[in-house]
Amino acid sequence: MANVSQPRSDGVATGDQSLLKRINSAALLRLVKTGSGLSRADLAKRSGLTKSTVSLLVQELIDDGWIREAEVPVSGAIGRRPTPLEMDNSRLALLGAEIGVDYLNVVACDLQGRVLAEQLQPYAPGELPATLAALSAMLAQQDKALAQQGRRLLGVGVGIPGTVDAAGRRIGVVPNLGWAGQEIAAPLAALLAEAGVRAAPVKVLNEANAAALSEYVFGEGEGIHPDSLIYLSLGIGVGGGIVLGDRLHLGHDGSAGEVGHTILQLDGPPCRCGSRGCAEAFVSQRAVSLDLTGATAPILPIAELVAKVTAGEPAAVAATERAGRYLGMLMQNICNALDPAVIVLGGPMGQLGAPYLATARASFQALQGRYAFHSTEVRLCRFGLNACAVGAAGAVLHDALLA
Amino acid sequence: MANVSQPRSDGVATGDQSLLKRINSAALLRLVKTGSGLSRADLAKRSGLTKSTVSLLVQELIDDGWIREAEVPVSGAIGRRPTPLEMDNSRLALLGAEIGVDYLNVVACDLQGRVLAEQLQPYAPGELPATLAALSAMLAQQDKALAQQGRRLLGVGVGIPGTVDAAGRRIGVVPNLGWAGQEIAAPLAALLAEAGVRAAPVKVLNEANAAALSEYVFGEGEGIHPDSLIYLSLGIGVGGGIVLGDRLHLGHDGSAGEVGHTILQLDGPPCRCGSRGCAEAFVSQRAVSLDLTGATAPILPIAELVAKVTAGEPAAVAATERAGRYLGMLMQNICNALDPAVIVLGGPMGQLGAPYLATARASFQALQGRYAFHSTEVRLCRFGLNACAVGAAGAVLHDALLA
Repeated sequence: MANVSQPRSDGVATGDQSLLKRINSAALLRLVKTGSGLSRADLAKRSGLTKSTVSLLVQELIDDGWIREAEVPVSGAIGRRPTPLEMDNSRLALLGAEIGVDYLNVVACDLQGRVLAEQLQPYAPGELPATLAALSAMLAQQDKALAQQGRRLLGVGVGIPGTVDAAGRRIGVVPNLGWAGQEIAAPLAALLAEAGVRAAPVKVLNEANAAALSEYVFGEGEGIHPDSLIYLSLGIGVGGGIVLGDRLHLGHDGSAGEVGHTILQLDGPPCRCGSRGCAEAFVSQRAVSLDLTGATAPILPIAELVAKVTAGEPAAVAATERAGRYLGMLMQNICNALDPAVIVLGGPMGQLGAPYLATARASFQALQGRYAFHSTEVRLCRFGLNACAVGAAGAVLHDALLA
Repeated sequence: MANVSQPRSDGVATGDQSLLKRINSAALLRLVKTGSGLSRADLAKRSGLTKSTVSLLVQELIDDGWIREAEVPVSGAIGRRPTPLEMDNSRLALLGAEIGVDYLNVVACDLQGRVLAEQLQPYAPGELPATLAALSAMLAQQDKALAQQGRRLLGVGVGIPGTVDAAGRRIGVVPNLGWAGQEIAAPLAALLAEAGVRAAPVKVLNEANAAALSEYVFGEGEGIHPDSLIYLSLGIGVGGGIVLGDRLHLGHDGSAGEVGHTILQLDGPPCRCGSRGCAEAFVSQRAVSLDLTGATAPILPIAELVAKVTAGEPAAVAATERAGRYLGMLMQNICNALDPAVIVLGGPMGQLGAPYLATARASFQALQGRYAFHSTEVRLCRFGLNACAVGAAGAVLHDALLA
């Protein structure tokens, strides 16, 4: 057997072997995740690894609870049949959380993004330490329940309504909560350790980025990932998350995806960001509410807007359709700039239905001009109001799969 | 010595060793390119490869003409000094070309993007085969000159004013020339082989993507690449090229970067793409010309616009400043969506000077709102009208460095 640290003269790296092992292990896991039913021999063939390497890594993945041997149907044929492997959704778990402006949401998920438990709790926004203490208590409770089910915790992801540095350690700006520049991952990890939560990495990211990962990591059809995905978070504000090349695109200063503050009209209506004519000032719940009441505060609750639109109140329908038309313009702009495989529409505004969504799709089509050959798929978010929390959990899994 | 194909039990890949070797070799080359003066020992330390592996690969890179041993200053100290390595700009060359709407441009470059020779030739747009034949003759002539200088040709890159599929083989759409769907790389390679051009890969890409690579691959300061770069091609039309994560972002259908057709005003002035209110209808040479003459054709030549603006003609200055203001809006939209490290402004419109560029910068700053913390650098393209051709040559080098 070759000695791992032995110098070699053939131009092949013999550097960090444990890193290579992690990469190979993650590659096998991705193969099993996307092509359930593959045998060890299939994995060797597809990965280019030797059969003995695959056997070793597969055994470790089974021991760690990631995958399992599937039942093989009994057949009359002679000889040993290759054993198909599949993701094991029974022994590991992820915790995801969203720190909202006035609520905390925690979900426990399996490796397929299925929600095992969820806990939504209103809270009064205050200082960061108090918020983290409340969140930590919720997470500890969920972790205890997972332990009772015999599940091992892989990690904790948290989405926040603001920007985070690329390392996920420190808050950038949180317009509504004002925690600019504060450390978040380390204090939360310390609180979790105190609360007895089993050792786990803590991953913090922007809420729209998290929501983008909910759709990307837990895609339909056994994890078939699109090559690029843009998530639009449509609520009182408008945010965005961008997945390109199998990674969140975070940007040079960690603030990519702020498509809600791309400008749709020069000298347009004022936006709360201080600029004018931003997408948020046209397509958000705030914008529709303002159109109806003429006042920037209070913002009409989404349920009230939905009731008005459903009842066919002309002003409400017109304001919603206007917002939808601008949403189509925003989608068209995203499409011509980034040409993504998928645009996912999420957030409460989707509840307004056809006057918003069908109008947006029609406007998107009508505005394409000669670039109508885009095959971008537009779909609604499948995780509803859990999108951010589920995606934060997905971020932990995504990191593990990227090794 | 370990046998390359021997199965190993330590979980390390023993798959495609020649691929690993190429990757390692390219990694060393990138280290030398970005940190000139590193010795073999430095490279071993930085790459994690063994000294013997580094020695072997470095020798191959020297033999192939990529790098060389730098002169070591004589010193009085005792003992052998480590030999610094540097890129060898004397033995290899790249050819880059631009197929314009009414001209062909060919440049020969060294590995630093220095233009060794250039040839600009007007031509009457026609069928693709005739264009490729004319281009092939120009390239063959340049290759012959390079051979006489003792330079080996690494490859040929070609930028075209339209979209190309991700593999760079087939044209998508070329609005002004109408070659939709036609094969381009293979026929050009065949013509070059016929013309006796030394075996070389042929790489075809969109002109704005190529121009983006000119700035990315041949960056200032010995190839220190920004993490993300957006190139804006500002001329009669407006195009864009996006470099993210060390790759051109091509998009799901190969048409990412069409920022000239992101919409800046719903129901705005008609754009030649068939839509309305596109950026191109506000910030382009076509838009300024239309503002001045009231007619969509003929478009005033850039030299004429420059003369009017320089002479201070109020209408010309006003039209140019208006275009600049919208350019600032486009930059702001790009910045909030993608948060790039660098935006590069290229194309003939830059010749209009301050009324265009300073206005754009001021507008960009004024529109940032609360996202004024972006540290995006805005700069002018350094390759002038050669940007596309130089960048097409850079694309060949970029592919080689990515292994």
